Amino acid sequence: MGRIDNENMEKVDGIVQTILADYGDDRAINRTELYNQPDKSAILDIIRKLLKIVYPGYYSDRVYKIYSVKNSLSATIEDVIYNLDRQIVIVLKCCGKYPDMTEVELAEKASEITFEYMSKIPVIREYLDTDVQAAFDGDPAACSKDEVIMSYPGLYATSIYRLAHELFMLGVPMIPRIMTEHAHSVTGIDIHPGASIGKYFFMDHGTGIVIGETTVIGEHVKVYQGVTLGALSTKGGQKLKNVRRHPTIGDNVTIYSGASILGGDTVIGDNVTVGGNAFITKSIDRGTKVSVKEQELKFK
Amino acid sequence: MGRIDNENMEKVDGIVQTILADYGDDRAINRTELYNQPDKSAILDIIRKLLKIVYPGYYSDRVYKIYSVKNSLSATIEDVIYNLDRQIVIVLKCCGKYPDMTEVELAEKASEITFEYMSKIPVIREYLDTDVQAAFDGDPAACSKDEVIMSYPGLYATSIYRLAHELFMLGVPMIPRIMTEHAHSVTGIDIHPGASIGKYFFMDHGTGIVIGETTVIGEHVKVYQGVTLGALSTKGGQKLKNVRRHPTIGDNVTIYSGASILGGDTVIGDNVTVGGNAFITKSIDRGTKVSVKEQELKFK
Amino acid sequence: MGRIDNENMEKVDGIVQTILADYGDDRAINRTELYNQPDKSAILDIIRKLLKIVYPGYYSDRVYKIYSVKNSLSATIEDVIYNLDRQIVIVLKCCGKYPDMTEVELAEKASEITFEYMSKIPVIREYLDTDVQAAFDGDPAACSKDEVIMSYPGLYATSIYRLAHELFMLGVPMIPRIMTEHAHSVTGIDIHPGASIGKYFFMDHGTGIVIGETTVIGEHVKVYQGVTLGALSTKGGQKLKNVRRHPTIGDNVTIYSGASILGGDTVIGDNVTVGGNAFITKSIDRGTKVSVKEQELKFK
Repeated sequence: MGRIDNENMEKVDGIVQTILADYGDDRAINRTELYNQPDKSAILDIIRKLLKIVYPGYYSDRVYKIYSVKNSLSATIEDVIYNLDRQIVIVLKCCGKYPDMTEVELAEKASEITFEYMSKIPVIREYLDTDVQAAFDGDPAACSKDEVIMSYPGLYATSIYRLAHELFMLGVPMIPRIMTEHAHSVTGIDIHPGASIGKYFFMDHGTGIVIGETTVIGEHVKVYQGVTLGALSTKGGQKLKNVRRHPTIGDNVTIYSGASILGGDTVIGDNVTVGGNAFITKSIDRGTKVSVKEQELKFK
Repeated sequence: MGRIDNENMEKVDGIVQTILADYGDDRAINRTELYNQPDKSAILDIIRKLLKIVYPGYYSDRVYKIYSVKNSLSATIEDVIYNLDRQIVIVLKCCGKYPDMTEVELAEKASEITFEYMSKIPVIREYLDTDVQAAFDGDPAACSKDEVIMSYPGLYATSIYRLAHELFMLGVPMIPRIMTEHAHSVTGIDIHPGASIGKYFFMDHGTGIVIGETTVIGEHVKVYQGVTLGALSTKGGQKLKNVRRHPTIGDNVTIYSGASILGGDTVIGDNVTVGGNAFITKSIDRGTKVSVKEQELKFK
Repeated sequence: MGRIDNENMEKVDGIVQTILADYGDDRAINRTELYNQPDKSAILDIIRKLLKIVYPGYYSDRVYKIYSVKNSLSATIEDVIYNLDRQIVIVLKCCGKYPDMTEVELAEKASEITFEYMSKIPVIREYLDTDVQAAFDGDPAACSKDEVIMSYPGLYATSIYRLAHELFMLGVPMIPRIMTEHAHSVTGIDIHPGASIGKYFFMDHGTGIVIGETTVIGEHVKVYQGVTLGALSTKGGQKLKNVRRHPTIGDNVTIYSGASILGGDTVIGDNVTVGGNAFITKSIDRGTKVSVKEQELKFK
């Protein structure tokens, strides 16, 4: 096979030294001390376990001998509490959110957050139950709710968004975003954990959907692939932090594929239908059907 | 590290009890009995093995001592037959498709389907061979057919769609959709297993492509990223089940990026070219080049 | 469970024989000899290790006992050199790039390429450091550079593109494309390894972005989801190989979501802003803000 063996170990060593030397200067891309940053794989493991908890039976390890999942779920819940607490301690420290707290106070803060978060699981499940119903009702191709839970990417992204959003609301940095970016990677749906989304939410197909940090969405909203609920411009960069930049969507709104609704002052009223590829930067009154005027086509 | 230990085990236990209590009521998101539902990880394993079978050598476990893959493939084929049969039994039962059949009859039905499915592998391979050719011929950036098979997401999605479609045609519920949603997750290409697609199919880049359940596509069709072959409206929800909702695409049609072709009565004739971002809801005669009239741009 | 056991082993065997017989003819989809093709899983492993090397500490295996990653990285670098060299030998052979070279000469060529590649790691890191900065500066939702490195899909795709591009520039076939298609799968962002991209590159959200093989991009460029930098037409197929088909983008250009910029003669000048959904096939002068003329909407 290759020619890399004893005779050119010197060359190998030279390259190792060159790269190690490059770690010397202080740059954002270097983080040669491990202990003080969150562990992405631990967070992905927490997500998997949270999904098992919110959909008992669906995401379980299939051991055909176990006919009830309740027994194994107690252990899973304890496990999530323990590991989530550990990760929250780390991000509270490393993100400098509470610079005046002692180590002990940070640990207390973390476990307080963890318990408050876990006590919200039944509420999260209440919302997810409505999302499953909305997907089944809204898609003629859906055969059963089982199929929705086991295979619909829109529900997967919504589930992880709802789990991440509660953590975001409790002021936990970084972990919620790592969670929603995992869902983004799996589904192509990018929901910022800061967005606020009502019950009976359904995304069909989903690929390319973007929902920005300060978006507010009502109940019974249906969104198709390629829809952006975004900012008008981000030229301001970090100066726009915490400014309302994304739209408000009312109840019973349907937004067809490829539409963009942009801007923090844009309000879409209840019962609005937004047609495919519409580019909306102003508010739309309730009950309106808005669509792109028929596209002029050329035929040759 | 964290503060969750003996002193607050009571709190942990309280949360465990709260969540377990929430499983009490009968909702779609609860499925606390495992034995009667399909196993997603087993289905993903079946897909991986089917890919090894249809592309012998390409997807094999690389053991450099084995110079021929034929030996190991016999075992893989037997393994797929056995495990696919098991999953089909489960979905036939849990989806209530044959409510009058006994357990034994369901098992016989499942193995009948499994054998019929596996006997179609050579036909599936015949189609895939044309898809590889189409990708190589159609993409100037393609260096070799090996590169196409090993790295093109469009071919990956087409392969899994073809494998799922045959199972769908044999009336198997849930499993085909789980298969194509796996491909959707990996590639961003969402093809419903019910769609019908002719030989020499090529999707370039692919991300965001949606092909609905009742779409019919001819031979030598080329589709780019972000194309939707979809329904005009799904307001009818479950009432539209089994109604033709998606378009018919002829032979030798090219559909450029971002175009939408919608509706069950929309027929795109042979040799049509559909330009980027065109929004088509009416039939197009054969041989036509249809494109969006030049967009009016503002310059500042 | 199923009915596949001794009594129908004959049927199983019949199907195995049918499928094996189908491997007899010589088609692209058959590759029953393993030893002479690249190993995709080995290449994915090399990517993971290269990410550990370019972002020391961020992608490391989390062993909380190790407080410095330098020690383990020396081993990782040696490992990458050895395994990348092996894969390069294979692709140089199987792609017939150097038909006149002996086995020994090919092996020498491979290790020469491997060493040259690895010596470029510090330059790749210099570029990536600017990309992290650009993402943090450009996104009001970014909390810290740590968050950018750990969770932003745009940076992930850029990182793998930069690692693959250097290999592409050294004339290595197949491996660079397998690398960028991995990133495409994870992020929905499809950058051909042949594209040329300057410092401070930032893609926000990212899903659906396509950047073609012969694209040239300047410094401080910001690109949003669904943007295509593509070819006008690929009807020529393999005849267009090595022809300039994709656009040139200047410095300080922002391209909003859904815009398409097409064609090898299309040059976007410095400091241009391209509005959402603009469809550009002609050059744009420097300093211009180009956007779609206000879309006519229908209200009902």
